[in-house]
Amino acid sequence: MRTLLHNASIIPMDGGTQIIENGYIVIEDNTITAMGSGEIDTGGFDKVIEGNNKVVLPGFVNTHTHAAMTLLRGYADDLPLKEWLETRIWPMEDKLTPEDIYWGTMLAIIEMIKSGTTTFADMYFAMDEVAQAVEKTGMRACLSRGMVGIGPQAEQAIIDSQELTKKWHKQGEGRITTMLGPHAPYTCPPDYLARVADIAFDLGVGVHIHLAETLGEVKDIVQQYGKTPAALLQDTGLFKNHVLAAHCVHLSQEDIALLAENKAAAAHNPESNMKLASGIAPVPAMLAAGINVALGTDGVSSNNDLDMMQEMRTCALLHKVNQMDPTVIPAYKALEMATVNGARALGLGDNIGMLRPGYIADMIIIDLNAAHHIPRYDITANVVYSGQASDVETVIINGRVVMENRRILTLDEEEVFAQAKKIAARLSAEQ
Amino acid sequence: MRTLLHNASIIPMDGGTQIIENGYIVIEDNTITAMGSGEIDTGGFDKVIEGNNKVVLPGFVNTHTHAAMTLLRGYADDLPLKEWLETRIWPMEDKLTPEDIYWGTMLAIIEMIKSGTTTFADMYFAMDEVAQAVEKTGMRACLSRGMVGIGPQAEQAIIDSQELTKKWHKQGEGRITTMLGPHAPYTCPPDYLARVADIAFDLGVGVHIHLAETLGEVKDIVQQYGKTPAALLQDTGLFKNHVLAAHCVHLSQEDIALLAENKAAAAHNPESNMKLASGIAPVPAMLAAGINVALGTDGVSSNNDLDMMQEMRTCALLHKVNQMDPTVIPAYKALEMATVNGARALGLGDNIGMLRPGYIADMIIIDLNAAHHIPRYDITANVVYSGQASDVETVIINGRVVMENRRILTLDEEEVFAQAKKIAARLSAEQ
Repeated sequence: MRTLLHNASIIPMDGGTQIIENGYIVIEDNTITAMGSGEIDTGGFDKVIEGNNKVVLPGFVNTHTHAAMTLLRGYADDLPLKEWLETRIWPMEDKLTPEDIYWGTMLAIIEMIKSGTTTFADMYFAMDEVAQAVEKTGMRACLSRGMVGIGPQAEQAIIDSQELTKKWHKQGEGRITTMLGPHAPYTCPPDYLARVADIAFDLGVGVHIHLAETLGEVKDIVQQYGKTPAALLQDTGLFKNHVLAAHCVHLSQEDIALLAENKAAAAHNPESNMKLASGIAPVPAMLAAGINVALGTDGVSSNNDLDMMQEMRTCALLHKVNQMDPTVIPAYKALEMATVNGARALGLGDNIGMLRPGYIADMIIIDLNAAHHIPRYDITANVVYSGQASDVETVIINGRVVMENRRILTLDEEEVFAQAKKIAARLSAEQ
Repeated sequence: MRTLLHNASIIPMDGGTQIIENGYIVIEDNTITAMGSGEIDTGGFDKVIEGNNKVVLPGFVNTHTHAAMTLLRGYADDLPLKEWLETRIWPMEDKLTPEDIYWGTMLAIIEMIKSGTTTFADMYFAMDEVAQAVEKTGMRACLSRGMVGIGPQAEQAIIDSQELTKKWHKQGEGRITTMLGPHAPYTCPPDYLARVADIAFDLGVGVHIHLAETLGEVKDIVQQYGKTPAALLQDTGLFKNHVLAAHCVHLSQEDIALLAENKAAAAHNPESNMKLASGIAPVPAMLAAGINVALGTDGVSSNNDLDMMQEMRTCALLHKVNQMDPTVIPAYKALEMATVNGARALGLGDNIGMLRPGYIADMIIIDLNAAHHIPRYDITANVVYSGQASDVETVIINGRVVMENRRILTLDEEEVFAQAKKIAARLSAEQ
């Protein structure tokens, strides 16, 4: 299968030219084999995509989510954190069956593809069903079984995590990878984290964990163990693995240095942190320390969507006002966080996250023929500051067109909508 | 002309029921004459709109913008404020002709209608051209000629403002109103503001002014006059008129009390204030003091779009994290700020901003058949936290359908795009 995309503006995100005008990309099977600027003979291709008035960029990488929580969208908003979790979210999650999680993930995948996300890092339960949804839809994902190290499920979580990796790591034409997913330092005691660290090392996979999301949890950890959550992770040996730390809102200067030394990646979730009033992560300081900071939406119940274009924009705006400096996180940096940094955060930086020959073809085509993209002095600024999810016209993952002219080709949207509505009605009735 | 909209969910924003299910609205000429829930005989109407799987709400009111600045979208981002204004924005604005401003406003109106805005408060130059664009397109707007009280244009600005009101106030089937637009306390000396106050009083129109946008300007005013900008306005007599104060970022407790006593309205522009790193307005404190706080986008050069759905969402998220309280500005409050508060801020609260019999039919229909609107536990939360501009399917202003199935019926989009691109090319070449 040979595909040509031509006459397009291209933002390759490869650290070189910011934008290639009148560009072309050749895709053979799942790989980009040629790229450049200018005219190209359109003969000999199985598919030719016209890129006039469009911009092509790497697909977004959502580095932290709980996809099936789409089923809880709008179920509980604007509540104090404790009430939100204990009286609304947890009771609802208890009712979710593996089949519910399959359909909730399918709903999430529709929303992600429609807003330009081509890869997501998921931490949830019933991950076999999640993997099936990813396999079927042509998405790329890095999957972790959320592990709570206290209570009756602690051992089962380890067994499930090992099975998930053995069954799914590098499966689905390589689109699926796995990590271990110890939920957080406050739900996994140090000896459990140490076991997880060893198991991940033996399996050769990374670790996806929540870190320092709220001030309360940091205070509790410091009180209980006499050290910060980041220092606690260090002592358990977790950092001998590649660590993807979600949130990182409340970090000390020492914590930042520690994450940098250990080459841990941070998944920054600005909208979730704002909506739950968790705080503002020290992103400029993390970037300055050399930490790879990527972006995530978190679950829909605290966002309330999976839209990475909004996440980029919110990230750029939030840190400008928080630092009282309009030069902080310029548009290109926000786009880096959403693409190339995301790929590196999932250990996929050699394969996806930028557009260059030899890389896998995970890319999106954005239509620029709309009022909010005119004029066009700076396409990158337009994408980040004026872009809308609905501008995403075509999505290619692993060389395959999974959405064309906003129609997803790998699933039946109406079937997924009907299933999700049926589940939501049941959950409401049970409440 | 009798129009029926039925089988819809309705968010009337009238302070009563939050949502009417299976609702109908009857529009006769430009007025809502009946509303309710249940089946209704569809006979005898000139037009029947099916509302199944849709939600109807008042159109958004953008209470602070400089519409023609769409022509500067993406021209200058991520720069220090002084450099941004002095080396980029002002030189570019100097090149704008009245005809440019007409087309820039047309481009803005397309973007606003497509994202559900039915009324905007504009402060700019060449306002006769702006009024022509508003008249032609069926939009509703409250127009102010931006007045700088120092330099050679000070007197001309007063003449222009008087002419604008005489020619356009309550024109265009009543869709156009005017205010006087003294730019700000730091660009209009006190005696000039006092003259503007008297002229506005004589003309019977309100005053639209920038207030306390940056810390620097507040410091300068305090140093020069020994009082805050709000106190300065008080002393000039400006508050004998209805005042719409844009930004209100840096207010003291006394300033807040003063605005409340004088029943001044605030146009909060969260995204512009974030992008320019101006600061975070004390919105919860203003609301608690009883100030009518509405929302605005500001000009596109500091936003970079005119999307009120994003503005609502950003407002709700920003103040939650700033107060470290997730209950601050719940979804319904954000929607109030974008609709009913906006109408009141422009002195139009008896006519628009809510849906109820006797009110003018300014309303939008949002399509809910999309992944990001499923499930549907709380439609208001979905609109505010998950809504996208592109969900807006139909827009009715003054009883007239101006957009149907996302096609604007009152102008030629491609012609406006072509004109805007031509102007942008000329401006770039002149630079």
